[in-house]
Amino acid sequence: MQKTIAKTLPGFMELLPEEQVLFNQMRKTIQETYEKFGFLPIDTPIIESTEVLLAKAGGETEKQLYSFTKGDSNLTLRFDLTVPLAKYVALHSNEISFPFRRYQIGKVYRGERAQRGRFREFYQCDIDVIGDGELNIINDAEIPSIIYEIFRKLGLDNFCIKINNRKILNGLYESIDAKEVSESIMRTIDKIEKIGIEKVKEELRELSLSEENIEKIIKFITIKGTTDDKLKELQNLNIKNETYLEGMQELKKVIEYIRLFNVPEDYFSIDTSIARGLDYYTGTVYETFLNDYKSIGSICSGGRYNNLSEYYTDKKFPGVGMSIGLTRLFFILNDIGLIKSNKKSISEVLIVSMISDISSAIEIANKLRQANINTEIYFDDKKIKAKFKYADKLKIPYVIVIGENEIKTGKLTLKNMKTGEQKECDLEEIINKLHN
Amino acid sequence: MQKTIAKTLPGFMELLPEEQVLFNQMRKTIQETYEKFGFLPIDTPIIESTEVLLAKAGGETEKQLYSFTKGDSNLTLRFDLTVPLAKYVALHSNEISFPFRRYQIGKVYRGERAQRGRFREFYQCDIDVIGDGELNIINDAEIPSIIYEIFRKLGLDNFCIKINNRKILNGLYESIDAKEVSESIMRTIDKIEKIGIEKVKEELRELSLSEENIEKIIKFITIKGTTDDKLKELQNLNIKNETYLEGMQELKKVIEYIRLFNVPEDYFSIDTSIARGLDYYTGTVYETFLNDYKSIGSICSGGRYNNLSEYYTDKKFPGVGMSIGLTRLFFILNDIGLIKSNKKSISEVLIVSMISDISSAIEIANKLRQANINTEIYFDDKKIKAKFKYADKLKIPYVIVIGENEIKTGKLTLKNMKTGEQKECDLEEIINKLHN
Repeated sequence: MQKTIAKTLPGFMELLPEEQVLFNQMRKTIQETYEKFGFLPIDTPIIESTEVLLAKAGGETEKQLYSFTKGDSNLTLRFDLTVPLAKYVALHSNEISFPFRRYQIGKVYRGERAQRGRFREFYQCDIDVIGDGELNIINDAEIPSIIYEIFRKLGLDNFCIKINNRKILNGLYESIDAKEVSESIMRTIDKIEKIGIEKVKEELRELSLSEENIEKIIKFITIKGTTDDKLKELQNLNIKNETYLEGMQELKKVIEYIRLFNVPEDYFSIDTSIARGLDYYTGTVYETFLNDYKSIGSICSGGRYNNLSEYYTDKKFPGVGMSIGLTRLFFILNDIGLIKSNKKSISEVLIVSMISDISSAIEIANKLRQANINTEIYFDDKKIKAKFKYADKLKIPYVIVIGENEIKTGKLTLKNMKTGEQKECDLEEIINKLHN
Repeated sequence: MQKTIAKTLPGFMELLPEEQVLFNQMRKTIQETYEKFGFLPIDTPIIESTEVLLAKAGGETEKQLYSFTKGDSNLTLRFDLTVPLAKYVALHSNEISFPFRRYQIGKVYRGERAQRGRFREFYQCDIDVIGDGELNIINDAEIPSIIYEIFRKLGLDNFCIKINNRKILNGLYESIDAKEVSESIMRTIDKIEKIGIEKVKEELRELSLSEENIEKIIKFITIKGTTDDKLKELQNLNIKNETYLEGMQELKKVIEYIRLFNVPEDYFSIDTSIARGLDYYTGTVYETFLNDYKSIGSICSGGRYNNLSEYYTDKKFPGVGMSIGLTRLFFILNDIGLIKSNKKSISEVLIVSMISDISSAIEIANKLRQANINTEIYFDDKKIKAKFKYADKLKIPYVIVIGENEIKTGKLTLKNMKTGEQKECDLEEIINKLHN
């Protein structure tokens, strides 16, 4: 028979089981933390009508879409979880309770240029709080506390959540009459970590800004010191613009509450160079960096927006949220060795039988499973060495051996696969041990 | 601004959060049971190369495919989790340990005719045990014990796992020289529950079978009595065909071991009319029915196959597995009222503040979350009645009220939203109560 070559498409992550276990652990940590903060799950289709997904058309994304027709329908695979949320809220606004705290973890699709560490199918893990008409600013401070808790639980301890507010950026540009070029300015200063101050100045000159105003911008984006120093300096810039002052009020409040939410001072900071996309966010914005690996870019970003569902409804739904790109994050953490190498198996114990009658093994497995212990029986008629090798490869921590002797005495041999230690135990002892 | 109509495509399930919580609970029960039996997770892409997915082409499925091109690539959304598994095993056979016990829970796509209860995007929850060259028959008996445990845990108690073996079917047809029409016979007898015996006979006559052989077939598919009666009767048919005898040996062994795996007699039975698809399965086959709702069809099916990856490799990988169509199952159980109406919220407690300073509320939330209690704070400045209504709608079981009095005394008011009972407690009491 002519064989087809088994292959997986480039840009699509497909893990071996032992890595998948680690991936799923990360996913579970994220999900459990979202639930701990009272977020409700939703699960929207991966395929949506193209018209619905592209209600807000344009931009880079459109080129990357997976779009196709089926019958009379123009269909597109979702490229993020925000547009589906906007649709969901517009569609179900009469049936959901506001403020609507929702999380969604699911795959999204972008036909990016294939290169190492870039994925065309990847998991996003999003939370958003959506208000009906209005939404309290304290929500903007709770989000960073969730980011903090997740990354600590994922075993990271050298990261920083950078916080800014789009209103102080916009206010600054309004105050120097540079509102029309504000997007270009933001795009430029967004690159400061990459290209440095001098290159930023050069690009700003190309926007026909005066040297004075360029200095003002540079001063603004390079303020230093503690968070309180920065708040003071931003105040002292003495910018008498309403938007700026409103942004300052919000930023101060967000900082005040982040502290109340117990995020330690080392794990957040004000960063006035962060703009975060260009037309979506309207207030608080966040990015999260690994201090030792800044070149990776932000590993968790988000912010406040005025009007989630404006392309579908006249109702106003302001919101604040953040997103973790789990597939890329897993790839990166694995790559730089920050995922604990302490690989865990699914099975807690493997039962191997030295005798051909396997009924005792099944009986014991029944009891262990009743006690909620993940248990596997090795059924195949292999040499004992092969059975131990299997447990070893799968990193199953314990093996129970059943032989004629065990049947006679009613005691079981429990082997610790890590230490090699063997012990005669009865089943109850084993259950107690494995429950720890 | 011109608005786009927010809509979800027909045939795509999109639940409200309170239903999503129930759906996710079912999914979690299935996943945890798979892990309890030592199955390892994998997660393959939703998009595969069309060539790979259609290595084994043809059949009904092909018309239903979501296929499209992107650049030079012909792509297709997976329509099941079995073909991706066949690819995965062929591709990674040198890196995985056999027997390979894997589970996968994910969405698959079939462009079925839109009708109530039929979905174009749906979750499948699959387990399979794959052997390298050979696979012990006891695996065929463990699968029903997993089906049994899952459905009991999902709160169902009136269901039956029907078991058959393709070899006894094939052996029977060989013995009456009807091998060439065996697929047509199986397709006919598969319908016996729907169309009745007489209609089955009629259709068999159309296949030019002698009356004697038709009687033999009817006798075979209508054997009655206990499982042991049936085994005896099948023996007594006195069919001297090697395939038949091999199938009988397997069936007997599977029944023997199902009992050892503690599946009660009421929850499984031999059903010789079940054939389960036509060219994939080669031995044991299962279907699972709700006794009170047989017209729904099988809610969990599977079986043994000889050669999982034959379209990709010359290596032989026999396997046995089963699949639960979760989306349809959820829809059905919800529809007939078999999902426990005991709706659970994500948040265990909502904190509402009667005073404008919300810092005490945050402090308490921090402590509850540290104690792993899912906690939400109501931030918006609404009337107390609106805050309670929110808790009520979301079915949050407890509300903690913080007012001036609570700040003064250090005691908190805990309201049980079900009974309406209010109690003054300190935080430790609340944590203990909510941990139960």
